[in-house]
Amino acid sequence: MARWKITVEYDGQPFVGWQLQDNGPSVQGAIEAAITRFSGETVRVHCSGRTDAGVHARGQVAHFDLDKPMTGDKIRDALNHFLKEVPVAIVAADAVAGDFHARLSCQGRRYLFRILTRRAPPALDAGRVWHVRHPLDAEAMHAAAQMLVGRHDFSSFRAALCQARSPEKTLDRLDVERVDHEIHVHAAARSFLHHQVRNMVGTLELVGAGKWTPGDVRRALEARDRAKGGPTAPPDGLYFMEARY
Amino acid sequence: MARWKITVEYDGQPFVGWQLQDNGPSVQGAIEAAITRFSGETVRVHCSGRTDAGVHARGQVAHFDLDKPMTGDKIRDALNHFLKEVPVAIVAADAVAGDFHARLSCQGRRYLFRILTRRAPPALDAGRVWHVRHPLDAEAMHAAAQMLVGRHDFSSFRAALCQARSPEKTLDRLDVERVDHEIHVHAAARSFLHHQVRNMVGTLELVGAGKWTPGDVRRALEARDRAKGGPTAPPDGLYFMEARY
Repeated sequence: MARWKITVEYDGQPFVGWQLQDNGPSVQGAIEAAITRFSGETVRVHCSGRTDAGVHARGQVAHFDLDKPMTGDKIRDALNHFLKEVPVAIVAADAVAGDFHARLSCQGRRYLFRILTRRAPPALDAGRVWHVRHPLDAEAMHAAAQMLVGRHDFSSFRAALCQARSPEKTLDRLDVERVDHEIHVHAAARSFLHHQVRNMVGTLELVGAGKWTPGDVRRALEARDRAKGGPTAPPDGLYFMEARY
Repeated sequence: MARWKITVEYDGQPFVGWQLQDNGPSVQGAIEAAITRFSGETVRVHCSGRTDAGVHARGQVAHFDLDKPMTGDKIRDALNHFLKEVPVAIVAADAVAGDFHARLSCQGRRYLFRILTRRAPPALDAGRVWHVRHPLDAEAMHAAAQMLVGRHDFSSFRAALCQARSPEKTLDRLDVERVDHEIHVHAAARSFLHHQVRNMVGTLELVGAGKWTPGDVRRALEARDRAKGGPTAPPDGLYFMEARY
């Protein structure tokens, strides 16, 4: 038996999320079905970080075990062949040690959140950005974001359904930059709470729109109360970019 | 009567191209129908540069005339309302002088061509990039591209159906750069022949793959014979980025 690590790109729009669910197609389900079709083996695929419905990935990482001997190139190409009908692509497949675990071995995760700030809706990027029709001050958002960097109790930015044992996390990076008509938020941490990135982005949007100050963000963090945080940004703009091992 | 200039973004995939045609939906047709729906007027829309089926735009420019007095903001928002069902967005609408003509007044056009170079197909960018499964040498492509910059007879890169009076054009810029797993080709000129960008990119791909040298590109140009140029790159990777006035 060998353990395989795959790097996965997907468009989150047609899926109920990464995780296998009864109510619709999942990324996990698509990949597990493709593995069975090419290998004849029934496997469980474990990912680095589950993404919600509508959230995209450029570099999701997952692992699974196969009995039959294979090469990484063969696995990548065969999976892509059986994934042709869905917007999921296996960018790489690499052999890893038997104790590698996509979630538990992960040392760092990186997300990108794209906000389109203009009156006109997105034509080329519908479903791929959060469309905000008013101007946003990227510099004010970046300044406010720095209030969140470091080790904190992130209860104010944590989904009610979050299953993490502790609300304490260390946020390594939260950078906000303007790129033409878009605002890009780059977030990096060893791990995140459920909805943490979307809740932080929804809060920073209030700062960009001039409704909140950076001080308001600090006070929201210190309140350790989800009711004191800003709204949850929609999934459309969120991309799982990288998992580090 | 007032003349209006609009800046248009679109996803070329569902369209037969910019131009009104009998065989399917066009960008021009979608915009003309939207104008009629909000203004009650029947208009003809003229663009800066017609794009083929499957070609995208971030900054196509077009003009049309309206009898009723309007504001640019009203036109932009109303058109976007009536274009909701198609991937076309009016980024801006500006009043211009009565002698402004989107095609004839245009001083310069800029295109981007995106090539994805990896084994795995695009998941997030299907239909938005040219997928080339082998590696390409971006530096060699850039060196070869410089053979084409300047004033030349571009017959070797001209579609048989091209209606331009002369095959002579001045290519101001043809830059090739690597961006992660992609190669971006930036092309700028006052105007281009039909398929010129796609034919140049198809030729540069031969250089990137090591099949042609920069000298081969120069000889193809000097032959002034389409049969001596490289193949036509697919429309998927091409974006009309900007028209300058």
